[in-house]
Amino acid sequence: MESRMRLALLLSACLLALPASASETRIPAEALAAAGELRERALADTTGHALVESLTTEIGPRLAGSEADARAVEWAKARFAELGYDRVWTEPVTFPKWERRSESARVLGAHAQPLVITALGGSPGGTVEAEIVRFSDYAALEAAPAGSLVGKIAFVDYRMARTRDGSGYDAAGPVRSRGPSVASSKGAIGYLMRSVGTSPHRVANTGMTRFAEGVAPIPAAAMSLPDADQLGRLLQRGPVQVRLALDVGFNGEYTSQNVIGEITGSELPDEYVVLANHLDSWDLGTGAIDDASGVGITLAAGHLIGQMPQRPKRSIRVIAFANEEQGLIGARQYVERHAADIGKHVIAAESDFGAGRIYGFSSNAPEYAQAAVRQVAEALAPLGIEHLPGQGGPGPDLIPLAQAGGTWAWLGQDGTHYFDLHHNADDTLDKVDPDDIAQNVAAYAVFAYLTAQAEGGFGSAAKDHASD
Amino acid sequence: MESRMRLALLLSACLLALPASASETRIPAEALAAAGELRERALADTTGHALVESLTTEIGPRLAGSEADARAVEWAKARFAELGYDRVWTEPVTFPKWERRSESARVLGAHAQPLVITALGGSPGGTVEAEIVRFSDYAALEAAPAGSLVGKIAFVDYRMARTRDGSGYDAAGPVRSRGPSVASSKGAIGYLMRSVGTSPHRVANTGMTRFAEGVAPIPAAAMSLPDADQLGRLLQRGPVQVRLALDVGFNGEYTSQNVIGEITGSELPDEYVVLANHLDSWDLGTGAIDDASGVGITLAAGHLIGQMPQRPKRSIRVIAFANEEQGLIGARQYVERHAADIGKHVIAAESDFGAGRIYGFSSNAPEYAQAAVRQVAEALAPLGIEHLPGQGGPGPDLIPLAQAGGTWAWLGQDGTHYFDLHHNADDTLDKVDPDDIAQNVAAYAVFAYLTAQAEGGFGSAAKDHASD
Repeated sequence: MESRMRLALLLSACLLALPASASETRIPAEALAAAGELRERALADTTGHALVESLTTEIGPRLAGSEADARAVEWAKARFAELGYDRVWTEPVTFPKWERRSESARVLGAHAQPLVITALGGSPGGTVEAEIVRFSDYAALEAAPAGSLVGKIAFVDYRMARTRDGSGYDAAGPVRSRGPSVASSKGAIGYLMRSVGTSPHRVANTGMTRFAEGVAPIPAAAMSLPDADQLGRLLQRGPVQVRLALDVGFNGEYTSQNVIGEITGSELPDEYVVLANHLDSWDLGTGAIDDASGVGITLAAGHLIGQMPQRPKRSIRVIAFANEEQGLIGARQYVERHAADIGKHVIAAESDFGAGRIYGFSSNAPEYAQAAVRQVAEALAPLGIEHLPGQGGPGPDLIPLAQAGGTWAWLGQDGTHYFDLHHNADDTLDKVDPDDIAQNVAAYAVFAYLTAQAEGGFGSAAKDHASD
Repeated sequence: MESRMRLALLLSACLLALPASASETRIPAEALAAAGELRERALADTTGHALVESLTTEIGPRLAGSEADARAVEWAKARFAELGYDRVWTEPVTFPKWERRSESARVLGAHAQPLVITALGGSPGGTVEAEIVRFSDYAALEAAPAGSLVGKIAFVDYRMARTRDGSGYDAAGPVRSRGPSVASSKGAIGYLMRSVGTSPHRVANTGMTRFAEGVAPIPAAAMSLPDADQLGRLLQRGPVQVRLALDVGFNGEYTSQNVIGEITGSELPDEYVVLANHLDSWDLGTGAIDDASGVGITLAAGHLIGQMPQRPKRSIRVIAFANEEQGLIGARQYVERHAADIGKHVIAAESDFGAGRIYGFSSNAPEYAQAAVRQVAEALAPLGIEHLPGQGGPGPDLIPLAQAGGTWAWLGQDGTHYFDLHHNADDTLDKVDPDDIAQNVAAYAVFAYLTAQAEGGFGSAAKDHASD
């Protein structure tokens, strides 16, 4: 029984350590009233879509490390200033520069024909001609015997599922991120894959791949879905030889910038509600849904809060991260730089899942802050947003912050059509609905304003000092 | 009154010259019964779609004059033979060979970015850098003063209308076919246009252009719709410089083949009901809707007639024309070669408007054959096809035959989505519905069989001998 007694004492001590209900985080009534007005103003405002139009038109594609990357940084600084942010600054982000110069693929022999492909980010250049070996998914590739792909081009033909919440991407992701490395480790000299995407059109989806330590990098590319279908049909007829020619690769180092704008808090200026997006895009489209929409949504949300009669209690920090696409590089370097201040990042949300309407909201804030989370959810409900505790997660650029102890909120967008456009040439302005952007802006503005006004915190604390 | 009397006499003479109702063309009852069975058999048959799959997969894109053109000819000969046609032969078709090697366009300066373009067929190669001058349509370009485009790139930004019957193409066509020549005549050194197409995706539509006698050919290309939108937005911000680089052009002469298969008639073997399609395609897609579908539909229709217990009274002649895309070249050379036999081509219909369901039927047959046309229409009605006298026209490859005096029929397909795919990279097999192909095969089979069994003709006669 002694051990039971000691357990009981330990449990009592733990319960005493939890905040009492009197110290629960709460949002004052006057803030909720003001948020209602803010929401309606945001729905009628066009700033968000105008920013998407401006970034996609004037800068266009903005691959990290390209000439357009530097133009995008200048664009973001100028927009923050124009939009009335109190402070605007940049923080350097350094990374290896990857370039795409040309790319092509062609079936050889009796059924000779071109294939629509695009090199994966991180692929080396090179020209290979070899027989195709098809795998239905990543697990099948992993199961291939050592040495079985010597001199071949591996082709992983996995079909990504279309889902509202983007969960199809989780299953398909490794085909792109790790497939080429696995294929090379088994002797392959080239890699082709059915795009991680859902578009039936003739556009291929790029995205980053990485080769494991000690594995020789091999030319790696994704095919459009119709081309993957075609290659599959040709393989049913017999062996297929393909020529894959990529002039791409890493070329030196580049320093870009995280661009940050702040609406400075009136009472707690050193505590920040963070709204995040990323400024870079892949090079095939103009990055309208990935992530000019996030840029427009979050910059407009902060701007609208800045237009209110008084500054919020806490600061609103809007961060346009550099080089998300090649490995959350701006976000990782931000967290390294701000390691001592994790607890000051009270709560953070990123818009980086396209331009669809927001349908769900949640946060990983601790129990003592969940009443406030419910208050935010109630203020979002008129936008058609449901409180979905336990669903969602941090946006990609907030993963490093969350790992360091920062609390996140999720404003979940409908991603049913996101992967029709994601990382391919079709990611252009015409796919963005101005009304949907306004709904997003309203949601981010309400979320940021209410959490900035909350009495009590949301649990952010540097991991070393965190209670759990 | 004398003149009135003479007119009355003349009218009487004319009326006497018209066929009496007793000599009207009619289709026998037993043929109508057999056609009903043929229709149901065709609806359950998969030959048409299998042919579309085979041609688009095994040959792929088959630009006239390319290596794939020759493979397509061999493919068609083999398919006709396999499908039980009684006679299969080829007739040579010679034309200048046009090639596409590479193409790119780029906005220069402060908003530098690539544009998705494709060279127009018939364009010369060349690289030009110049300021853009925008025109809203072809008429505006035509109205530009002489010399006003010296050293510029003309940009015609006309938006094609989406229609069921394809009539939007008639209005948009000259932007492509004549725009570059008009622009050059006013001094332009390059030409860009919003694609003649309705796809919101990042695919540009090619197609033939022609330069008038004495006008200097200039590099000419079409942009995808999102890119035309983008260029329009950039022009709203100020002058835009573009670099257009085309490595394309004519390169010698090539001889392809019209490929012809015949189900030989039992009573009137030297009278032909013609079913037409074209074997060539543009090079960007695999020519699934333009015109592998027509190939599959008409070859399957003839095959199904050939599977009947008896050969039809007249011959069924299925013609896979060479090089339709660059100016109905195979069709024109066919009519030159068969000038003496126009009257033997009793009636002709072409499938060259995609893979949509057929919704309408008509024929320009003379009045004495319209009762038979109505009988065909009644046999087509169970397929959801309406008799629409006065609508439609000959398929493109039948224009030369019609001009020479041949009678045509129109089996009008729903073209609402045709120009999403027409002449662009998205024209691939996945856009073709097997059930819609079967409906088309049934319609062509019924039409061909019934007109082959008709008692009396449909008015075809070489123009010199035609009564009207």
